[in-house]
Amino acid sequence: MLETLPLDLLKPRPVPQALLLGLQQRFGERCNTALAMREQHGRDESPFDVPPPDVVVFAESAEDVAFVVALANQHAVPVIPYGAGSSLEGHLLAVQGGISLDVSRMQRILQVHAEDLTVTVQAGVTRSQLNAELRHAGLFFPIDPGADATLGGMAATRASGTNAVRYGTMRENVLGLSVVTASGEQIRTGTRARKSSAGYDLTRLFVGSEGTLGVITELTLRIYPLPEAVSAAVCFFPSIDAAVQTAIQIIQLGVPIARCELLDAHAIRAVNAHDKLGLQELPMLLMEFHGSPASVAEQAQTVQDIARDLGGEDFEWATTPEARTRLWAARHHAYLSGLQTKPGCRSVTTDICVPISRLAEIINASVAEVEATGLAYFIVGHVGDGNFHMAYLIDPLIPAERETAERLSHQMVTRALRLEGTCSGEHGVGLHKQGFLVDEAGEGAVALMRSVKQALDPRNIMNPGKIFAV
Amino acid sequence: MLETLPLDLLKPRPVPQALLLGLQQRFGERCNTALAMREQHGRDESPFDVPPPDVVVFAESAEDVAFVVALANQHAVPVIPYGAGSSLEGHLLAVQGGISLDVSRMQRILQVHAEDLTVTVQAGVTRSQLNAELRHAGLFFPIDPGADATLGGMAATRASGTNAVRYGTMRENVLGLSVVTASGEQIRTGTRARKSSAGYDLTRLFVGSEGTLGVITELTLRIYPLPEAVSAAVCFFPSIDAAVQTAIQIIQLGVPIARCELLDAHAIRAVNAHDKLGLQELPMLLMEFHGSPASVAEQAQTVQDIARDLGGEDFEWATTPEARTRLWAARHHAYLSGLQTKPGCRSVTTDICVPISRLAEIINASVAEVEATGLAYFIVGHVGDGNFHMAYLIDPLIPAERETAERLSHQMVTRALRLEGTCSGEHGVGLHKQGFLVDEAGEGAVALMRSVKQALDPRNIMNPGKIFAV
Repeated sequence: MLETLPLDLLKPRPVPQALLLGLQQRFGERCNTALAMREQHGRDESPFDVPPPDVVVFAESAEDVAFVVALANQHAVPVIPYGAGSSLEGHLLAVQGGISLDVSRMQRILQVHAEDLTVTVQAGVTRSQLNAELRHAGLFFPIDPGADATLGGMAATRASGTNAVRYGTMRENVLGLSVVTASGEQIRTGTRARKSSAGYDLTRLFVGSEGTLGVITELTLRIYPLPEAVSAAVCFFPSIDAAVQTAIQIIQLGVPIARCELLDAHAIRAVNAHDKLGLQELPMLLMEFHGSPASVAEQAQTVQDIARDLGGEDFEWATTPEARTRLWAARHHAYLSGLQTKPGCRSVTTDICVPISRLAEIINASVAEVEATGLAYFIVGHVGDGNFHMAYLIDPLIPAERETAERLSHQMVTRALRLEGTCSGEHGVGLHKQGFLVDEAGEGAVALMRSVKQALDPRNIMNPGKIFAV
Repeated sequence: MLETLPLDLLKPRPVPQALLLGLQQRFGERCNTALAMREQHGRDESPFDVPPPDVVVFAESAEDVAFVVALANQHAVPVIPYGAGSSLEGHLLAVQGGISLDVSRMQRILQVHAEDLTVTVQAGVTRSQLNAELRHAGLFFPIDPGADATLGGMAATRASGTNAVRYGTMRENVLGLSVVTASGEQIRTGTRARKSSAGYDLTRLFVGSEGTLGVITELTLRIYPLPEAVSAAVCFFPSIDAAVQTAIQIIQLGVPIARCELLDAHAIRAVNAHDKLGLQELPMLLMEFHGSPASVAEQAQTVQDIARDLGGEDFEWATTPEARTRLWAARHHAYLSGLQTKPGCRSVTTDICVPISRLAEIINASVAEVEATGLAYFIVGHVGDGNFHMAYLIDPLIPAERETAERLSHQMVTRALRLEGTCSGEHGVGLHKQGFLVDEAGEGAVALMRSVKQALDPRNIMNPGKIFAV
């Protein structure tokens, strides 16, 4: 039993026959109204039960996208951009019906400028596809949410992942976009220059707009040389607090660590089972260092010294690329591995991010609170950023478990805001965190967001009902 | 003789007596209509001749700002935020009359969170004031435009400076803002967390909005530990091309250089005269390396190898803090020093930024074009970013010189856009680059900016006539 949305979010709009005919005429088999296809596009990793979209259209070009959006605008019908379907916050759900616009076939890598460390791709390219293409040129794109998401989707939710502590998030790594606006017009934002003071920062207005202001069709991204030296290590701690304190000190000392991930004992148990890793079932930091051989050695030494002082056991180094890949693959599977520890469960997942000095306080308090309820959970976290996820594992047949999880999640967000943090580090607001957004930003700032939305999408066709009610 | 603006930009609006009375009643002597004060607030480093604002108000709090903006909104009278007055693009000019709202007395440093590497300041704090406060805690704020600008002004123009190649620009270093919107309401954007996916990126919408969307009253900024080791060096080259090629290779190799500045022989001559430096009058790179002692040594060695291969003479190291300070002070004075090489001159200054691989091409072409005209000029550049400034020194009494400079500037921007760069790396659009912005972003994107402006400032009171005509 999935969660039922508040009724005021569900406002299906009529889809006129003329619109459907117009889509069928242009797209033929790429316009699909079969229930199975619509249901597949009407679901994501969020726990909501919402009727599927009325129709799924597969775009293969920016012109396809512009056609769909212009027609939808004419008929005031919603358009929901769809990439890999890996959203955790209900971004894809057709709460007002309409068209699921699938851009996953727009997967051409258009330009690789190794000499400038930029790349231009279509929105449906996934992060792993891009990295497979870049690897042979000695380059990589660092942003890596758990899922193999599309780059368009990652921009739309302002995604980050394990490398953000060193390389930033999509906010810092998108140089420019091609966007189809709500009227069906194609615009470009940004250039290939590293910086610019030319006008409003439309690039960063669309990054994180969750499909509510337009459809991203192309992205120009920063890429990076593969580091000369890479080393990864795991380190086990007697308590979560000791692991988190280590992460805090690493950041406060300014160590340019590339990745600094926390897994609690529950998460380790899950990845051990799923990926056959045999790791000790203790709170663990999973770290990676990038740089010259000397710099990597220096960073590693500093971090070992900090960890030892806090009771961390000696590092285990993953020196071969294969061993590293295995560890990071396990980290990326952690969410799914965790779900499998409680068969049939669903997850309520938190995403708060706080100033680094406040991280231990909020993790310790959150662990105490969940332990007191007996609810199953696990923790994974981009702790170098002050960001972590607690997944509460609930039996969908037991409403009390969901209520408990939602109460714990609310307590955690309230605490995060008091500590000057945010309700969402990287997953976005979607359907689930709209109340939290108001708590965080205030009514005035949300009203301002809403007026931007109304100015850019006066008929409210772009992914309506997400981020805030309009 | 300053340049006369196109008449359609000059649209003075009446300032009703009721408004003036309301301001005088609240602000007393902090409300000033004396001509000298108005003229001082109606001028910046730009070459335009515009009547002064009608009144100058000195705000000392966000509440003062909110009062002024609400009253101005009621009477549909322009409000022009004023910080240090160091804009180069006419941002401060009262093209539609109205109130110059001086926030330079809002200079309290509100919070220093060394443990999180964040600081919260009022908008009138200058970069040098902040750094003086941070130094004793072993911290610094890296963004350093040539002038000792206010942090509010730096955010409003999305400023950068010499450290941007390593630390980013105001875009990357503002975590959150307090803003008075056009209705006089106070809102906050962002939090102290390093990253967030919570709603539209209002912070970055206001950063670079040049006072046209609201008045920034407070900023929360990222700060950095003073590096363990710092070394600065100068290196001289037989040609500008060789110096630029060196910078390109440094960036392409991924050397984490902290500062990488070009000065041409004319700029060297100017700083030698102004700062009594005795540098060779040859194209020069002025560089700085930050990190651990080992990392700094490694970076310096890599850079020396590159420079030597390209004909750079052996490095001269500035090992003492005093020697470094002297060099960087000279760099920050370069603009004013350059102006003094041609007494009575004014400058037309370019600000293009291109992908790094295109930098040599555009500098070489721009030098050839200016040399062919015989116009005096000098070049300084944040070449590690692909950004440089050519200052054309013109006699304001000789209209042909201005025409030549404007033509050269236009040619350079056209070339920069063809090379996928931007018309403004860090100075902003203001009055002078509005045509270039349309060339760069396209009519559609500028129309979108305009609709954001209209939504957030329906009576067009916030610094009207800047970035684009409304």
